[in-house]
Amino acid sequence: MTNDTHAEHEFRNATVIGGGVIGISWTALFLAHGLQVTVSDPLPDVQDRVHAGLRVIAPTLEKLGLPVAALEEESPALTFEADADAAVAAADVVQENAPERLDVKQELWQAIERAAPAHTLFASSSSTLPASETAKGMQAPGRLIVGHPFNPPHLVPLVEVAPSKTTDPAVVDLAVAFYTSVGKRPQVLGREIPGFIANRLQAALFREAVYLVSQGIVSEQALDDVVTSSIGMRWAVAGPFRTFHLGGGPGGLADFLVHLGPGLEALWPQLGNPSLDPQTVDLLTKQAGDFGGTVAELAEQRDDAEIRLMRALDEIPLPQ
Amino acid sequence: MTNDTHAEHEFRNATVIGGGVIGISWTALFLAHGLQVTVSDPLPDVQDRVHAGLRVIAPTLEKLGLPVAALEEESPALTFEADADAAVAAADVVQENAPERLDVKQELWQAIERAAPAHTLFASSSSTLPASETAKGMQAPGRLIVGHPFNPPHLVPLVEVAPSKTTDPAVVDLAVAFYTSVGKRPQVLGREIPGFIANRLQAALFREAVYLVSQGIVSEQALDDVVTSSIGMRWAVAGPFRTFHLGGGPGGLADFLVHLGPGLEALWPQLGNPSLDPQTVDLLTKQAGDFGGTVAELAEQRDDAEIRLMRALDEIPLPQ
Repeated sequence: MTNDTHAEHEFRNATVIGGGVIGISWTALFLAHGLQVTVSDPLPDVQDRVHAGLRVIAPTLEKLGLPVAALEEESPALTFEADADAAVAAADVVQENAPERLDVKQELWQAIERAAPAHTLFASSSSTLPASETAKGMQAPGRLIVGHPFNPPHLVPLVEVAPSKTTDPAVVDLAVAFYTSVGKRPQVLGREIPGFIANRLQAALFREAVYLVSQGIVSEQALDDVVTSSIGMRWAVAGPFRTFHLGGGPGGLADFLVHLGPGLEALWPQLGNPSLDPQTVDLLTKQAGDFGGTVAELAEQRDDAEIRLMRALDEIPLPQ
Repeated sequence: MTNDTHAEHEFRNATVIGGGVIGISWTALFLAHGLQVTVSDPLPDVQDRVHAGLRVIAPTLEKLGLPVAALEEESPALTFEADADAAVAAADVVQENAPERLDVKQELWQAIERAAPAHTLFASSSSTLPASETAKGMQAPGRLIVGHPFNPPHLVPLVEVAPSKTTDPAVVDLAVAFYTSVGKRPQVLGREIPGFIANRLQAALFREAVYLVSQGIVSEQALDDVVTSSIGMRWAVAGPFRTFHLGGGPGGLADFLVHLGPGLEALWPQLGNPSLDPQTVDLLTKQAGDFGGTVAELAEQRDDAEIRLMRALDEIPLPQ
């Protein structure tokens, strides 16, 4: 594959395995970036589901300045093929979004490998199953990589690219090239680790959030407002290291760690260690009722705000 | 004080104790909101420092749409009074930003209490010393409250209002009214806790960030980019609870916790527990060199981005 530079950098046909929420979101993104997309899902109503999903997503992509004609129901850019073997026969890239069950994914990838061309990029959206496990049983396990999106993939820029120890380095490059070509910001992990990066960071913050609410220090609403009015808006424009680098004065992170590192380190063992026991789940669920509006309404507000934010920041050169 | 409704809701004279970075930032904010400000700091060059700081801050406040004439050097709205007793004699609010030393702050607050009017709001910016400790030795310790800004106070909306067990509830209301009147988003804590809310959440996420970098999973730059392109942009518009509420489908947080709670809880004990030992500090410091540019340049970029973000989100109704 490394010798076939043509195939490496041109992605025309994408096969999306699984027509659920994530699969539909990838489909929308790929269509808006001019790809020919085949959706493969054995569910009988998959076409209706996908078309309904694309109708919801199209206005969002339009607000982001992307062409959405290919998302319309009669678009020739979108086809359906329930049989996975047939669906991948002409694929340049396969993005798999099957249920998070190891046996299902292993069997699927063995079938895909037999039916797909030699140049095809093989990527799994899995958030929990590493390529090293999923690829077991493949003839060439080095072809598989995880390309884990942050939900929803059509909107959030991050894709975590997680190679296994045996993943071919050329596959890593190919995955980065592919996700970049559809407007994403891929980040390659140094090695497989449960939860990858974003979900681990998120889990760490959420653990403390659950603790503070369960201790009655703050309500869910108030904690959310603390975040949006401080660290959230900060981390939207500068990550945690850059934030502390700029918090250290002219000496940067070095000075920050000298002056504020000890206080930070002293705080770590004082952070909470809650559990999601029935009582805590009950409290969290009850307070979520205060958000008001249906989930769909709140999600629309959130997505609108996110689009406004992305457009506002778009003029800014992103960190390399 | 609770009977004097006039004094409770009109803030004309603010005294800022301490002319360092935080004191200057509060001064700028108060001036831009039409307050008469007295800065009290025994340092001989305090006037030069404050004027220099205000010159840097003025363009930022201007971009946020605030009037900045009062920040100019010849402005009659700003005076200096080294002696704390004299500085607070006519104050409606005292915002104290003295060094984070308990003995210094205790002595200062005893003096302020003796010299200030009976209606004055007493607020400490302290990030580490709770009102319960600082107020020891005051005649009426119930008058003191912590009003902890997120740096820089003139830009970031959050102020954490942390009453001690003995803080008068009327003082809590007064503090909320004051910070709201200068455009901030105050959040009242249910009780004193080390690090308050935002710094605890930040410390939790940073601990995992340090772990991932120290393990070679990801570089500082890449981790920052992961954050800005996923959870950061998300948390700028919806806090962690709302984000998971919207991640649960139509059933909201309840369904999220049923389906994804166990996986999240299983991840918690797998999160890292790094220390800021010399080797780790060395690694973190070295990688911070890759940010490029001086801290001042990077901070200006960051603040510009933050202003653009705040203006873009300004049209959106904030959660209550």
